Formats: sequence, C-alpha cells, structure tokens
Amino acid sequence: MCGAITLFRGTQKLPRSLPTGARVCFLPGVRLDDGIALGGTPERCRARRRRSSWSVPRQAVRAVVTALAAAAGATYAGDRLRQGIERGQQKFMSELVAACAPGAVPAILSGPSFCCRCCRGMPTAVTLAASDGKLAAALAQAISAASFRLYHSTDVRGVEIGGAAKNVLAIAAGVVTGRGLGASAGAALTTRGFSELVRFGKAFGAKPQTMMGLSGLGDLLLTCSSPQSRNFSFGVALGRGGKPDTIQKTTGLAEGRVHGRGIGGNGARKSVDMPITAAVRRAARAKMTVDEAIESLLARPLKAER
Amino acid sequence: MCGAITLFRGTQKLPRSLPTGARVCFLPGVRLDDGIALGGTPERCRARRRRSSWSVPRQAVRAVVTALAAAAGATYAGDRLRQGIERGQQKFMSELVAACAPGAVPAILSGPSFCCRCCRGMPTAVTLAASDGKLAAALAQAISAASFRLYHSTDVRGVEIGGAAKNVLAIAAGVVTGRGLGASAGAALTTRGFSELVRFGKAFGAKPQTMMGLSGLGDLLLTCSSPQSRNFSFGVALGRGGKPDTIQKTTGLAEGRVHGRGIGGNGARKSVDMPITAAVRRAARAKMTVDEAIESLLARPLKAER
Repeated sequence: MCGAITLFRGTQKLPRSLPTGARVCFLPGVRLDDGIALGGTPERCRARRRRSSWSVPRQAVRAVVTALAAAAGATYAGDRLRQGIERGQQKFMSELVAACAPGAVPAILSGPSFCCRCCRGMPTAVTLAASDGKLAAALAQAISAASFRLYHSTDVRGVEIGGAAKNVLAIAAGVVTGRGLGASAGAALTTRGFSELVRFGKAFGAKPQTMMGLSGLGDLLLTCSSPQSRNFSFGVALGRGGKPDTIQKTTGLAEGRVHGRGIGGNGARKSVDMPITAAVRRAARAKMTVDEAIESLLARPLKAER
Repeated sequence: MCGAITLFRGTQKLPRSLPTGARVCFLPGVRLDDGIALGGTPERCRARRRRSSWSVPRQAVRAVVTALAAAAGATYAGDRLRQGIERGQQKFMSELVAACAPGAVPAILSGPSFCCRCCRGMPTAVTLAASDGKLAAALAQAISAASFRLYHSTDVRGVEIGGAAKNVLAIAAGVVTGRGLGASAGAALTTRGFSELVRFGKAFGAKPQTMMGLSGLGDLLLTCSSPQSRNFSFGVALGRGGKPDTIQKTTGLAEGRVHGRGIGGNGARKSVDMPITAAVRRAARAKMTVDEAIESLLARPLKAER
C-alpha cells in the first residue's frame, strides 16, 4: 500500500500541528468523494467529530498522534501505521498509538496496492484491521468501492508486522533479480522469506491467517516483484555489485535497511530463526558481500520444511 | 518443477513396458552424475535393486506404476506424481500408487524449479515428501547438491495437492495479466487463491505448513508469473479475449482446465469455498466471459479475512 489515503504530502520534519488547507499533491485529475474533507487542524477534527485518516512518515507518527489525541474522535486509519517499527524505541506503531493516545482505537489499512492504480478503478483488495471487530467491519464497509475490496480483521499486530517485514525481504528478492539467479530462486527466496515472516509473527502474537492474507503475503508479493518498490530496487542494485551507501544516494532510503535491524533484533530476542533477514541485514550494511550472503543461505543444513 | 529428474521423454500413449535404452531428450550438454543409470525395463530395475525415478504424464501413471510394482524396489520418486488428480477416477496420485503397488512407498519431489536452470547450477530449492520421514530425509540428502536444496516432509498429500491446484490458479493469474489489471490485482489474486489452496488442503488432511512451503506457495508463485507455464499462458490469452478451445490449439493442453474440474468437484464435496477455482472453471470452458468472472469475484460480500 503506497498511500491510497494519502491526502497531503508527508514531511520529513516533525509538524508542530497539522497543515491547514492541505493540498492534494498526488493523483492529479482524480476527483475525491464529496464525503471526504481535506486536511484541517486538530481543532477542526474535534469540531466536526469525524474520523480522521492520515499518512505520515514513520518517524512523524509520534508527534501527529499526540497532536490528534488531544483533539479528535476515537479512530485513526493511517496506512503508514503498517510501516511497523519506530526507529530508536523499536516499538510497533500500534504500541506507539496506545502510548500517545490511550483512548484511540487505531485502524490499519494495508495490502498490495498502488494508489495511482486503485484510484483509477483497477481492481484492488486490501485488509483493514482494528482490535474492535465491529469497527473494523464498519470501516471496511464504509471505505470499500466496487473495485476496491476491503477484508476486515482484528489482528492489528499481524497487519503491522507484515508491513515492516516485507521491506527486508524485498531487498533480498531484489538481490536475486539483480544477480540474475532466475525465477526459481526468486520463488524459493520469497517462500522461505514468507516462512520467516510467519515464524516472526507467531512469536509476537500475530495470527498465521493474517500473515497468509493481503497485508502479509499479498503485500510481500507485490513488493518483492515491483521496480516501484524502493527496497526491491535497492536490492537489485546491491545484487549488481553496488555499494549500499552509494546506492542509497540514488534510490533514497530503503526502509528494509532500517527494519532489518528492528525485525532482526526483535526476532533474536525471541529466538526466531531468520536466516534471510540476517543475511540482508549484513549485506545491506556492507558487513558481508552478496556472494557470501548467498553462500551462507545455501550452506545451511538440510532440514524438514516448516 | 518441470522435470528435474525427467530422463526420458514422456509419451501420450500408455506404454506396455518401460522403454529400453531411454535417451536423454532434454538438457543437451548437461553431464549426468555417474551414479544415475538411464532408462531400463522393470526387470533391470529388479536385478539392480536400485531406486527408480521417473516422470510420465498423469494419465500414464497407472500403467507405469503397475509395471514397476511387479518388479522393482520399494521407492519411486516421480516429479509428475505431484500433478495431482487422475482423470476420470479423480484419485490423488498417491492413492493411485497405493492401489496399483500396495508395497511401494511413493516419494514426491516438487517445488519451484526449471530443470534447464537447476542443472546449470542456478540456486534451486524444492520439497521431497514421503510418508516415512527417515526415507524422506535420506532421499533429500542423497539428491541434494550445492545449489539444489531439498527440504524434506512427510506430508505427501499436501505436496500433491499444491501441484494440482496451482495450475488452476495460474490460469487466473494469466487472465489478470492478459486483461491488464495490474500488479496489485495480480498479488491480491494470488493471495486469495493461496487461501483457497490452504482451505482445500486442510479439508483433505494436508498440513498448512506444506501449503506455505516450496511445493505449495513456492511453486504457485513461479507458475503464476512465468510465461514458461502453459497454464499461465493459456490464462493470458483468455484475458486478451481468446476463446478457450482456440487457445488450446496453440498452447497445448493447459492442465488447469482439467484440474479445475477435479479440484472444484472434490472441494464442493467437502463444502470448501473456492470462488476463484469456480470462476476459472467456468471461464476456461466458455460458460462465462472473463468480464463476468471478474465481476463475480468483485461482487462477493465483504468479509473477514481468513
């Protein structure tokens, strides 16, 4: 999900308040539904008693949620929430919302989609998760459209884990492509990576069916095959022999580089076996060459599939 | 798996006995390991007391297994076994082997691979399943090579179900591509199709982790994205507006057309919800247009993800 409900451009600086008169910077020519009000301040949210929907960079979530918590209704649906883990504190985004806005019920929208396509009526299906099942079903019903199908779920943790872990695996998939290892190796890598994702999710209380769903497997499939994914492109360049820091100057930040540490660190605390994440983490920081990373995966003992 | 251990060309006619002096028709220039003996008759198999490995079309399995049962050792590893369901009798291949060769232990090799690539050292990982776990582990060890990783499993049913169901889903994935519905729709289709696969497998005693493994998800991913897959190509042509019978004259038999009936019929007997399989089954037999099939999937009630 690259921002189907992104109504204003995210900023790298932490905002002191929400921008007034937010502009549509993406999707020129797409007419928004009349029921959607654009932008506004926390005070306007309170006055209107509407649900607010936002999408900001991971590192700005704490400030935005804190500003909204003092103002608006109980529900926030932000697609960037799924981006997973806060830098530094290593908190999942739902933990962050709980800490900054204890009365809020975060709802997360995630799944395989490109906003530019789904806004033009191409069939798209994603997951909407909130811990309150009735709220999740009602929001899914409200946001759905003929070609935009929302499945609902109560597994918030599962959805946010999928969103974070896929970035790491997308780098690995990119490496396979960049190195020219072929479609079979790519499919095997994605499958074994998905096993890591399921193991990691299980250790943190996510349901396997969420991992197998649109926000887990679905988003993973799209990210692991799309040149539009920064993480995949970063991996392709790495596989072709580029140096991580040099590549980043061209592609911008590949979040999987950062998430590799968060996911890997959290996984290690719970003894989750994550060889692909570990290999990406090292290769993406130039602690290991790509060939060494591939060899480390191929040299593992043969074992039962699980 | 398109035939990594295919040593002689399969024939559409049922053989009266195995061909003597079988020739290597595929993989020119690839040197076979000296430990592998080529071809032979059932009598030679008995004399050598070796394990036999074969790959024949689905409809020839009954005759070949019956011929071997009277002769050779206890183990057969045939990658075509995974092709799933016998025409007419609707039997899974392991059931067929049990009926024709009650003393045999069928071992199945399946996963995302192209023989032409893995024989040239491109990294490949697949699953080998036999009900006897020690045998599965020993065979996996014996067949593995540096760049050809075998994971072992005791879930024979799970492996053969994955091999059959993916062909139906590959047609659906091809339709999405042929119709130009975009990568998001493709990822969503594959994910929801995978859910069908897991539900179907569960109803027939397969383990979810097998479905999530190389022979299930892995092979599905390769088949659903590869123009080398006849089923995917059939779907692409269907999505572009071709008529099923006309397309088949060009692409050859897309097994998903046949399997759709077997999988759909078996699923219906156990009340498994399989909307994608049902849509493919109808569209691939011109009982419904592609647009009607897509609409039938998009018009389903919104529900919880599972």
